[in-house]
Amino acid sequence: MPESAANCLCLFRRILTALLVCWQGRTNVNTELADIGIIGAGQLARMMHQAAIPLGIRVRILAGSRSESAAQVAPDVVLGSPDDPVAVANFAQTCRVVTFDHELVEVEKLERVDLPAAHWCPSPAVMRVSQSKRLQRECFTRLGLPLPRFCLSSSEGERAAFIKKVGFPLMVKADRGGYDGRGVWKAEDTAEFNQIIEALASRNTLPILEERVDIDRELAILVVRNPSGAESVYPLVQTVQSDGILRELIAPAPESSSLVAEAGAIALTLARALEVDGILAVELFQSKGKLLVNEIASRPHNSGHYTIEGCETSQFEQHLRASLDWPLGATAMISPVAVTVNLIGRGQPALDQWRLKDALAVKGVHIHVYGKEPRVGRKIGHVTALGYQTNEVLARARIAASILNED
Amino acid sequence: MPESAANCLCLFRRILTALLVCWQGRTNVNTELADIGIIGAGQLARMMHQAAIPLGIRVRILAGSRSESAAQVAPDVVLGSPDDPVAVANFAQTCRVVTFDHELVEVEKLERVDLPAAHWCPSPAVMRVSQSKRLQRECFTRLGLPLPRFCLSSSEGERAAFIKKVGFPLMVKADRGGYDGRGVWKAEDTAEFNQIIEALASRNTLPILEERVDIDRELAILVVRNPSGAESVYPLVQTVQSDGILRELIAPAPESSSLVAEAGAIALTLARALEVDGILAVELFQSKGKLLVNEIASRPHNSGHYTIEGCETSQFEQHLRASLDWPLGATAMISPVAVTVNLIGRGQPALDQWRLKDALAVKGVHIHVYGKEPRVGRKIGHVTALGYQTNEVLARARIAASILNED
Repeated sequence: MPESAANCLCLFRRILTALLVCWQGRTNVNTELADIGIIGAGQLARMMHQAAIPLGIRVRILAGSRSESAAQVAPDVVLGSPDDPVAVANFAQTCRVVTFDHELVEVEKLERVDLPAAHWCPSPAVMRVSQSKRLQRECFTRLGLPLPRFCLSSSEGERAAFIKKVGFPLMVKADRGGYDGRGVWKAEDTAEFNQIIEALASRNTLPILEERVDIDRELAILVVRNPSGAESVYPLVQTVQSDGILRELIAPAPESSSLVAEAGAIALTLARALEVDGILAVELFQSKGKLLVNEIASRPHNSGHYTIEGCETSQFEQHLRASLDWPLGATAMISPVAVTVNLIGRGQPALDQWRLKDALAVKGVHIHVYGKEPRVGRKIGHVTALGYQTNEVLARARIAASILNED
Repeated sequence: MPESAANCLCLFRRILTALLVCWQGRTNVNTELADIGIIGAGQLARMMHQAAIPLGIRVRILAGSRSESAAQVAPDVVLGSPDDPVAVANFAQTCRVVTFDHELVEVEKLERVDLPAAHWCPSPAVMRVSQSKRLQRECFTRLGLPLPRFCLSSSEGERAAFIKKVGFPLMVKADRGGYDGRGVWKAEDTAEFNQIIEALASRNTLPILEERVDIDRELAILVVRNPSGAESVYPLVQTVQSDGILRELIAPAPESSSLVAEAGAIALTLARALEVDGILAVELFQSKGKLLVNEIASRPHNSGHYTIEGCETSQFEQHLRASLDWPLGATAMISPVAVTVNLIGRGQPALDQWRLKDALAVKGVHIHVYGKEPRVGRKIGHVTALGYQTNEVLARARIAASILNED
């Protein structure tokens, strides 16, 4: 063998060794079984990791990149796409329990993953319902829960009959893929209605027709349940939305004493019927004084961020405890009023620490930033304040939020 | 060039590329300037990281190994010894502010590190005082603070005169290196005293002679100060020690209204005189109803763990805010009583999740485990409970702690 080739081989062996050492260094945290794997690395995963630290729960995160919200703050990150069934399957094999940062995972792919040692939290069956407005409406109806009248039929005749019954304006909703106001349209007349239906025909989603109800206000309630069947309900809260995005939250919902029992019963009925593991968020309308179920989400939810400082056990800690089938924590509020104001991106420059510093000068606010670029309509953080009097607490949280959200 | 050599070179180039990508992947988090670097990776660093997440503060940790408490939960870990001046210097260059998980860093080494862009928090001058019982006593005396009588002299005649004045039993303390009860001895008579002095002569530490005061109870108070001079005092708390280790803490200290103002004034006097940046913990004796200063620590402190759930701003968040010269948070308690019970290792097997699960069945407790092996005398976690009535809250926390601390 010529000398140059021998030298090359020697160098090659050395580099291979270095490469192996380096590779082992990168992956050493991943060889042990994690307690909880989280698919997706958004702010929910970030806040779950934060809640896992004091309990010594080993969290592993499947992230698209190391710059994602949760991947910035957690050590045990596996790179891979939540849409890639092979990546999800390999990831799931290394975790005792697998949960989700968001609901946009394809259930069919999950079901094909063989999980002998782990379990999904929530189950693919629950995920399927929480991903589908159609299945939700069928479920609410089957359970006898109050909800706006709707029509799932694709027959023109049945649709016309429904429209005749409920009249315009009419809501049209996409079965899947809608969140933060996406996938919902209001039709004022037949022309608009036909336009929406035509546009939807090109997408692979079934339109749902729904009566437009007069909404006094929107409410939400969280319930948590573990595989052993322990369950606990959080306070009923009021949410303030605009453009379909949750902007503000008041806990407990003011003047809601007559609604609390019914809201709690609705949430428990759903959690039990679906056999939910973990947090279930139920969004409600208050219409002419009555409750109507709007939709559900089977994971920690934006309407529960106030629980981090406002309740004895945060929704994130509670979700982890429920996922592992551990005893649930108390859900009582630790102050008379808690308020959360969301920070919504408006395409302004990324949040710098000068603004954070100014916002922290507002006493009695808890600031959470998610480490995300402030793209328009994107949730980039939230501010929670506690206190005694709703208007005062809300004003305080709004001041801090407005400083953080400046252009 | 022969074909085999050309192939080798091609392979070599590919491997080199893979190696580079891999290497960049490992180090990409470390090339940016961190907001705060923490020297040491114990539980204080772990809880600082937890507090940093919501504020988006980028923390970097200098750890001896990836299995250390804070390195288990944080992504940005640099391996190196806090005793190695080169490792510390290189680490410090990559951070805006450098703070400490413990005080056992050699100040002389820190002072040799050239830090053009960053600053130490606290400063080496403050570290020097908090590492030395001698310098602390000189400082307390200079500031006119009340403290037990002491003798720093190495002259036999002066020592004899001091012993004649205060009598036996007598406390002998090592100048440096003492914590959790180490470095403190009680001499009942001259024979024991001579024995201790002889044993200390072989170590490189100056013995301090101190009168033995009748201690009604031990107290502690935290104060926080930022480089701009903003300052804030936490409530006065009662600590219960045994074998020199903090076992339990009650906040606020019961029946302490007559002492609060003086304790706060002592803490502020010290923080201002030393120009402390960050948290300063002041340990006090209550002796015959009067306060005496015992010692100080210039970092988040075991006597402040109750602040995580019990106060509007935890000592960890506060320390980070002060380090970055950000506005300080409110220090008020959010419940009438908070209690912390420490988990102290007794050489039992490592804490398993079955015990954690059982302890979590106790409602209204906040469990913090540090991911450390339960070596004898080592702090491995703590339990905090909030409520209205001290005995009830203490009993609740003790039940959870006893489950966690079982053999």
